[in-house]
Amino acid sequence: MEKAQKVFESMMENDFCSQWLGIKPILIEKGHCILQMEVRKEMLNGFGTLHGGMAYSLADSALAFASNSYGRISPLINGNMTYSKSAKIGDVLKAEAKVISLGNKKADTDVVITCEGQEEPFYFFRGTVYRTSKEHAV
Amino acid sequence: MEKAQKVFESMMENDFCSQWLGIKPILIEKGHCILQMEVRKEMLNGFGTLHGGMAYSLADSALAFASNSYGRISPLINGNMTYSKSAKIGDVLKAEAKVISLGNKKADTDVVITCEGQEEPFYFFRGTVYRTSKEHAV
Amino acid sequence: MEKAQKVFESMMENDFCSQWLGIKPILIEKGHCILQMEVRKEMLNGFGTLHGGMAYSLADSALAFASNSYGRISPLINGNMTYSKSAKIGDVLKAEAKVISLGNKKADTDVVITCEGQEEPFYFFRGTVYRTSKEHAV
Amino acid sequence: MEKAQKVFESMMENDFCSQWLGIKPILIEKGHCILQMEVRKEMLNGFGTLHGGMAYSLADSALAFASNSYGRISPLINGNMTYSKSAKIGDVLKAEAKVISLGNKKADTDVVITCEGQEEPFYFFRGTVYRTSKEHAV
Repeated sequence: MEKAQKVFESMMENDFCSQWLGIKPILIEKGHCILQMEVRKEMLNGFGTLHGGMAYSLADSALAFASNSYGRISPLINGNMTYSKSAKIGDVLKAEAKVISLGNKKADTDVVITCEGQEEPFYFFRGTVYRTSKEHAV
Repeated sequence: MEKAQKVFESMMENDFCSQWLGIKPILIEKGHCILQMEVRKEMLNGFGTLHGGMAYSLADSALAFASNSYGRISPLINGNMTYSKSAKIGDVLKAEAKVISLGNKKADTDVVITCEGQEEPFYFFRGTVYRTSKEHAV
Repeated sequence: MEKAQKVFESMMENDFCSQWLGIKPILIEKGHCILQMEVRKEMLNGFGTLHGGMAYSLADSALAFASNSYGRISPLINGNMTYSKSAKIGDVLKAEAKVISLGNKKADTDVVITCEGQEEPFYFFRGTVYRTSKEHAV
Repeated sequence: MEKAQKVFESMMENDFCSQWLGIKPILIEKGHCILQMEVRKEMLNGFGTLHGGMAYSLADSALAFASNSYGRISPLINGNMTYSKSAKIGDVLKAEAKVISLGNKKADTDVVITCEGQEEPFYFFRGTVYRTSKEHAV
């Protein structure tokens, strides 16, 4: 099994939040990850659409698996989310994360979230992780 | 009852996500809001600390109540989160939102999240809402 | 002449800052723009590399031409810059701006800045403009 | 002379960009800095107001002096700028930078830019620096 896959499984086992979100892995490889999530009732905000923090959570999980896939423990230090369209209950979202810059001390990752059956992306996320010198025990 | 309080109650009634997060209002007034949330097991990430998206969700809810408190429907268009410290299970977090700039078409809001018993803030959030011309029906 | 080109020329005529930066247009079309700039001595910071604000200025100009290319006056409301590598005096930079989301009231644009002779991008910028209802007089 | 002041003078000597911007120090102390800048013609954008990148440059310089004031070399890795009002030619701007979180590996700094004679801030900046282990030679 590839290291990226091993790191994902090791992280996901303890990631009770991603489990609660119902996140499913579609693709896990070095610096690249695709996750799927279906919008449920308890993810809605006061406007009846997907809560901004839930869309962000999906993106953050995708970033985490992509940027930790190289093996080093890499926590998020900054995240930025741009909202274009609003997802509704029952929508099936796909988050694709790609590491756009891999440095010795930090890495930057883009995540684009699309909605099944719709062409234009709904959410755009960009985040930076600090790359510690500690390796995932996998 | 003040308009800010009315808007909060009207939004919160349908905000199943904030309800799920166990968010409690400490203070709700025009352009200003304090919320409280306790970190639960299903909010943890693969590192055993509060998932970045859960901290963001608390901040986003605080921003939403503060920036909608003037009466106009105002959805988030951009959110930025800076991570300084990591909350753990059982931690009681307070999110204080203040509108820092109120324009005709957009408003900017800062949210600082602190942890009970600790002096230095854990998370810093800044977000921008688009101010529609539509009023909350309260 | 295309509208995008006309808007560019009309804006550039008064854009004394882009003129001072020595910005040259490589490509100007609807929602898409490539600019070139050479790093000069008065653009350096205290570390002897390109000042973060100068890299940002190049990106901001590229965003402005791309997001105003549809004809409506569209000022920046939020900009976010991620720094990966540092440019030096004499470096020739290319900034490519693409509108990633075009809404009725706002548009989001990505700008990637690369350095001649180097493969990996140096700077990543993402910004949001408010789309007024006023048209450029071109 | 205080270390913060020594670091400022050492950086400013080579910071040809801040010199070009006409930046003047009003206050330099540990984790805190106030700079002044007057808007000149070559700082204007195509709308006849201060170019977004010039406002950002002022904020970035203020952040640099505040976050390097502890002695460790600390380059910017991410900057976020929110635009509320537009400065015009002749306006005298003040940028106040405060370190809001000082960690071992990174520091976060807020900068608020105000305009002489006006109450409400014009620009809000937040940035993160990586704190290297190398000390400024002062």
